[in-house]
Amino acid sequence: MATNQGLKIAVIGGGSSYTPELVEGFILHYKELPVRELWLVDIEPGLRKLNIVGNLAKRMVEKSGLPIEVHLTTDRRKAIEGADFVSTQMRVGMLDARARDESIPLKYGVIGQETTGPGGMMKALRTIPVILDVCRDIEELAPNAWLLNFTNPAGMVTEAVLKYSKVKSIGLCNAPIGLIKQVSAKYNVAADRVYAEFVGLNHLHWITRIDVEGEDKLDDMLTDGYSAKNVPAREWNPEFIQSLRAVPSYYLKYFYMTDAMLEEQMESFKQGINRAEVVKRVEEELFELYANLELSEKPKQLEQRGGAFYSEAAVNLMRSLHNGSNDIQTLNVANRGILNFLPDDASIEVNCVVTKNGPLPLPLTKIPPMAKGLIHAVKTYEQLAIDAAVTGDRALALQAMVHHPLVPSVDVAVRMLDEMLEANKEFLPNFFTK
Amino acid sequence: MATNQGLKIAVIGGGSSYTPELVEGFILHYKELPVRELWLVDIEPGLRKLNIVGNLAKRMVEKSGLPIEVHLTTDRRKAIEGADFVSTQMRVGMLDARARDESIPLKYGVIGQETTGPGGMMKALRTIPVILDVCRDIEELAPNAWLLNFTNPAGMVTEAVLKYSKVKSIGLCNAPIGLIKQVSAKYNVAADRVYAEFVGLNHLHWITRIDVEGEDKLDDMLTDGYSAKNVPAREWNPEFIQSLRAVPSYYLKYFYMTDAMLEEQMESFKQGINRAEVVKRVEEELFELYANLELSEKPKQLEQRGGAFYSEAAVNLMRSLHNGSNDIQTLNVANRGILNFLPDDASIEVNCVVTKNGPLPLPLTKIPPMAKGLIHAVKTYEQLAIDAAVTGDRALALQAMVHHPLVPSVDVAVRMLDEMLEANKEFLPNFFTK
Amino acid sequence: MATNQGLKIAVIGGGSSYTPELVEGFILHYKELPVRELWLVDIEPGLRKLNIVGNLAKRMVEKSGLPIEVHLTTDRRKAIEGADFVSTQMRVGMLDARARDESIPLKYGVIGQETTGPGGMMKALRTIPVILDVCRDIEELAPNAWLLNFTNPAGMVTEAVLKYSKVKSIGLCNAPIGLIKQVSAKYNVAADRVYAEFVGLNHLHWITRIDVEGEDKLDDMLTDGYSAKNVPAREWNPEFIQSLRAVPSYYLKYFYMTDAMLEEQMESFKQGINRAEVVKRVEEELFELYANLELSEKPKQLEQRGGAFYSEAAVNLMRSLHNGSNDIQTLNVANRGILNFLPDDASIEVNCVVTKNGPLPLPLTKIPPMAKGLIHAVKTYEQLAIDAAVTGDRALALQAMVHHPLVPSVDVAVRMLDEMLEANKEFLPNFFTK
Amino acid sequence: MATNQGLKIAVIGGGSSYTPELVEGFILHYKELPVRELWLVDIEPGLRKLNIVGNLAKRMVEKSGLPIEVHLTTDRRKAIEGADFVSTQMRVGMLDARARDESIPLKYGVIGQETTGPGGMMKALRTIPVILDVCRDIEELAPNAWLLNFTNPAGMVTEAVLKYSKVKSIGLCNAPIGLIKQVSAKYNVAADRVYAEFVGLNHLHWITRIDVEGEDKLDDMLTDGYSAKNVPAREWNPEFIQSLRAVPSYYLKYFYMTDAMLEEQMESFKQGINRAEVVKRVEEELFELYANLELSEKPKQLEQRGGAFYSEAAVNLMRSLHNGSNDIQTLNVANRGILNFLPDDASIEVNCVVTKNGPLPLPLTKIPPMAKGLIHAVKTYEQLAIDAAVTGDRALALQAMVHHPLVPSVDVAVRMLDEMLEANKEFLPNFFTK
Repeated sequence: MATNQGLKIAVIGGGSSYTPELVEGFILHYKELPVRELWLVDIEPGLRKLNIVGNLAKRMVEKSGLPIEVHLTTDRRKAIEGADFVSTQMRVGMLDARARDESIPLKYGVIGQETTGPGGMMKALRTIPVILDVCRDIEELAPNAWLLNFTNPAGMVTEAVLKYSKVKSIGLCNAPIGLIKQVSAKYNVAADRVYAEFVGLNHLHWITRIDVEGEDKLDDMLTDGYSAKNVPAREWNPEFIQSLRAVPSYYLKYFYMTDAMLEEQMESFKQGINRAEVVKRVEEELFELYANLELSEKPKQLEQRGGAFYSEAAVNLMRSLHNGSNDIQTLNVANRGILNFLPDDASIEVNCVVTKNGPLPLPLTKIPPMAKGLIHAVKTYEQLAIDAAVTGDRALALQAMVHHPLVPSVDVAVRMLDEMLEANKEFLPNFFTK
Repeated sequence: MATNQGLKIAVIGGGSSYTPELVEGFILHYKELPVRELWLVDIEPGLRKLNIVGNLAKRMVEKSGLPIEVHLTTDRRKAIEGADFVSTQMRVGMLDARARDESIPLKYGVIGQETTGPGGMMKALRTIPVILDVCRDIEELAPNAWLLNFTNPAGMVTEAVLKYSKVKSIGLCNAPIGLIKQVSAKYNVAADRVYAEFVGLNHLHWITRIDVEGEDKLDDMLTDGYSAKNVPAREWNPEFIQSLRAVPSYYLKYFYMTDAMLEEQMESFKQGINRAEVVKRVEEELFELYANLELSEKPKQLEQRGGAFYSEAAVNLMRSLHNGSNDIQTLNVANRGILNFLPDDASIEVNCVVTKNGPLPLPLTKIPPMAKGLIHAVKTYEQLAIDAAVTGDRALALQAMVHHPLVPSVDVAVRMLDEMLEANKEFLPNFFTK
Repeated sequence: MATNQGLKIAVIGGGSSYTPELVEGFILHYKELPVRELWLVDIEPGLRKLNIVGNLAKRMVEKSGLPIEVHLTTDRRKAIEGADFVSTQMRVGMLDARARDESIPLKYGVIGQETTGPGGMMKALRTIPVILDVCRDIEELAPNAWLLNFTNPAGMVTEAVLKYSKVKSIGLCNAPIGLIKQVSAKYNVAADRVYAEFVGLNHLHWITRIDVEGEDKLDDMLTDGYSAKNVPAREWNPEFIQSLRAVPSYYLKYFYMTDAMLEEQMESFKQGINRAEVVKRVEEELFELYANLELSEKPKQLEQRGGAFYSEAAVNLMRSLHNGSNDIQTLNVANRGILNFLPDDASIEVNCVVTKNGPLPLPLTKIPPMAKGLIHAVKTYEQLAIDAAVTGDRALALQAMVHHPLVPSVDVAVRMLDEMLEANKEFLPNFFTK
Repeated sequence: MATNQGLKIAVIGGGSSYTPELVEGFILHYKELPVRELWLVDIEPGLRKLNIVGNLAKRMVEKSGLPIEVHLTTDRRKAIEGADFVSTQMRVGMLDARARDESIPLKYGVIGQETTGPGGMMKALRTIPVILDVCRDIEELAPNAWLLNFTNPAGMVTEAVLKYSKVKSIGLCNAPIGLIKQVSAKYNVAADRVYAEFVGLNHLHWITRIDVEGEDKLDDMLTDGYSAKNVPAREWNPEFIQSLRAVPSYYLKYFYMTDAMLEEQMESFKQGINRAEVVKRVEEELFELYANLELSEKPKQLEQRGGAFYSEAAVNLMRSLHNGSNDIQTLNVANRGILNFLPDDASIEVNCVVTKNGPLPLPLTKIPPMAKGLIHAVKTYEQLAIDAAVTGDRALALQAMVHHPLVPSVDVAVRMLDEMLEANKEFLPNFFTK
């Protein structure tokens, strides 16, 4: 380990457009998180992007005057060896795969979404074996490292690592930190004066308590509502939201407003609009900016990209683990009895105290009874899909898809699964080479 | 109690067309279940039917030569006083309400069904307060009586009694005994040589073990399939059913084949076919038969009515409770840890040993992981709907409807609930008189 | 398997003085339990006894005229091969080891008992590895066989098999059947009209419900008390027993009357009386009788031996497993949630329905709150002792002994353990050859 | 509430010798815990002490120049009205009762101790009804107040409040903070760089993790041992302590070294030494010092009194609750699933994050399997004793005493209970006036 002379950090998928934000975080918080070596790793096809973003990273560090070494490589094992933290932000199959995840389900009258429903399932099938492969390297080369997983579907990926490897792993999402920032802006207080209790799974949570400076503001939030950028804004029915007594995460719109969300997706699809395509364009523009040799800081435009705060969340978590600061963060970790109807090794999204030895989940003070069924139904699908990803067992994949609450029947599942597996053939060796 | 000189039995809803089957059962099993007084109770509007079926019952008993007294009355308290067993087989709002339960949801593109989905929920809202009223009488007038509940939705009604009264109650369905009879016919063995393990809720169970004379026949059943009369026959996808490793109850078709079942219901609806209407006609024909003074036995035609074996199930259960025969029956009882993800007071459908002190649920030897999510989702809806029925709280009713897996959105739920509550106004005093 | 032409039964420790009772049971119940081959196995040093008792068995069978073959052998593998049932009734170290188990603790002021306390722990350390060795043979040579374990400490031995082998195993004790027989005699009713609910562990149970022909007789039993032959009779304090609301098993006297029981043991010890010695003499007298070639039935004197009903319990269990009779028996099986504060794989003593596929434990209707702590304390010791037996880890053995509720201190445990391990050296290869 | 203009604090048992420490804490931490009114309450017989210590408190505040009002009163309701925090540090029956708690058991050969065993049980029986009486006042006059309970047996008293009142209550002990201070001194680091994980109950805990600046020092502590002032120092057997893999709390010596501890108590008793008497003398000396009008600070001698750090613990807790500082403290709170074998409403001693809304217990990362039985056995006794205290039911008191692991038999329990109840007659109205 590099701990004595400063930390070693490996970023798998380092060619991502998010990387400058991460680098900015390392620079800003160098004092509490003394990074000595930053290894940005990517695969061959991503080498162009890695070089562009990596060179921007080098310019940023140089400008800061800090003794951080930035390494660009396609040699994952070299990057991982002796690392203190490994973070992943990968997209197996890249944006083309995402475009398919989002469009094929629409043909069957089913929500097409990147991280939930059949689209999210395909992303899980493609991603989990790759992440577990990374874990094999970590187990061998950096057994004490923390794996910070940003790769979606982050809850399922984290659960796969918990079940199928010995790596110490934590899943991260930007939604919780985003909510805190919204509340802190709304009430004009510092973020650490906001306490929000999250209940549920990654991309399937309810917020049941929002205290601002110790005062309960839940009713306020249920009345005024809140909005988020990367999901179409929609108003909740007031009678419904008041009696729910919880703020639903914006991904819950796919479950609570399935018909309207589907109609909207269909409309966009007919008009040839496609979120994957939009993101593709935004990314291209970002990389044009990054390539500018004059640039030596994170460009403002990056903030308009959906995943704001991802890197902030990551740096916060690394700082707290490194220093044992015992502060509270919302993370994806093993359930261990918190939601008493789920198995101990299910991943859940929950407030944790981040100790030097890792996050300890805090007990929930309220669980909305309405939420239990949906949480369990989605977790059932997740467990089946994870096992399908690991084994390549088509029958398990069918069971997973049938039991996803957004899939209307066995018949649709059978046909949609066939098409989607075939479309992802290249990225599913477990399913196609055995 | 009438125990010393023979048993007293009160049948709430005694004017039902099923009653002759029950009477036949009492006659056949008189030796082990010595009924002295049989009280058939009904409400004023059902008096004509009560008289017809009651007089048939009297003729049947007379023919048997047994010392059973048959009483016909609208005085429920008199019937219940000192009873050993009270059974309920009522239909609040009668077949007209059922017709509405089945048709209104179709307007919203939602399954219209008597016991599941929005239709079943309305039935629960109408029925639960009436049953709890019966329970108040039992608590006062026959505190040691067993309440055998056949009234659908039997699982929810039983759970309501478990939660909101002190009456000793058991819920009954004919589906389990029907499955056993099918298997016993298929393999040409006595019913007591068949052991089937049921997992789940009333009208939402999976059969995970089918032993015939100690040999495992599950694979056989998964390959050959099985059929049932009161749900349209449909073939299961073989890949799906094989990897499910369980026989789904026929009500699961509403969940696993939602699209096709809905299409079929729509088609029938367009053609003016309506299951409630069909049943109405069958019932009228039955009562014409019953009114024939020459008739003094259960007519064959009754067997073609959907609910075959209901009365057999009831008589079996009374015999076992009375004699403490410790045999195994599939019943709706409090969960008490059997499905460890549900609360202890949730009603489940499960094999029980019927002791003199009541049924003891047997632990499950297998729980299909696929089933957990759907069971929990439906139970979540059931809990909310039961509380809505008891309190008349419209917001709770909305939460219940939104969280039923067959309801596609909050928006649909809000509109459909409004129409359905209004259509049932007459039978929902909790919702409309407060 | 020998099933087609009748059953094959292997009795490990077949030279036991109990064997004639078992043979009598096989003869009496031949119709429902058609034994074709009975293999009595014993080790070399027990060959003389095996021959005596085995020849008596042969004479008994001959007299019955039934086609049961009796085989006497020291070849355990041959006996086990293809068996339907294997039963064990062994005593590793024989009565001399028992004498040491009972006497050494007395030197340290601690209860000296065959199955509980330090004595029972030594018996477990000696026995568990041998039983697991038998299990290896069963796994290989008779994987479908049921292992019926009578060998004490039966609860610990059964738990060891549940945890460390794949053999289907059930532990048996004569205490429950003994209680039923006492009650049935007291009230002059058939045994199957008595229902008693047992809560706890082997040799550590409370009886919380005693129904005779469906009527609650618990108060009666708490007032009149009951007695048992193989533990010195002592009266319970009436105030204590009434508020306990349960009949304690007679082994509970070692915990509830520790001082008086210890005093009595000390007194006997001083007088040179020793239960192991008494048993030794009784056994010798029995074998003298058995050797008489005129004898071809179970001699009356056998009934005065402590373990009455053991063989009846065994034959009952085999019959029910063979026929899937679904009757209720009190057995030692895996907890699986019945006592919700113990792990699922802890062995408990509990009423079970004996199905063709094995026993299913029945949920408890009452758990005396007073009993929970002691049950958990003894189970904690048992778990530690089982792991010590399997690993030969002396530190684990110390933890086990320290945490037994009858052991007063670490200091006593350290010294007593040293002496007892040394005294059992010959029978503890796990502890002494590594 | 007095929150706007500063906090109101009521100290029940304010005449205690500990009070100066508490006052010192309020002065030192005034900035984060702005106390405006400090009400010291005591009963009539304690008025002399209240005046002495209260006047010292006034002199201390005056010297500090802070605007804290000190009120001395015997009117408990006036003190509680509108309080933000209520703390209790009472001794029902005073030191004479303690002397009896410690001496009577010795006559029966049983450990005589203030907070554990029969002595602790008597203290619970005397104290719980008084505390619940205080709770009635808080419920009425200060429903939002936090009750900080220092009164021993703190775990049982806290559990009684959790079960029998609506007051928000937390139990506190000085042992955890004492351990942290020892470790911090040993390694010469700040206390907040030490993280220790406590498992168990009040006065019955094991420490399973000791990290100093993130490094695991458990082995170190198991090798070097640690000592404490208010329990006779004794060495642990090294083999035992190493395989226990946890540091036992010093009260565990009464369980792990029962014989030696008892012998020592007997010896002291014979010599007329008595801890209650010693404390009495120390207290008298302290009050002599306090009465000195020159004194206006906490005298050094107070630190030699056993309960060091009590007040520090209290002030820490109030500060964190008031500011929502989310730091980790070891407290006695409701179990809520942390020790999964105990009921949710059992009090346990566990690390908590102290939020503005109260403490949230942290999940345990290790539970020593050895500890489970003893924890459950003592908790069983505690539950029975709490119910006995509330109801005055002598039979329950007997069950509690019988089931305490330090009591050797029903017979001893019966006789000892009789004598102890009689000796405490004056303070047990629940037992003697009904």
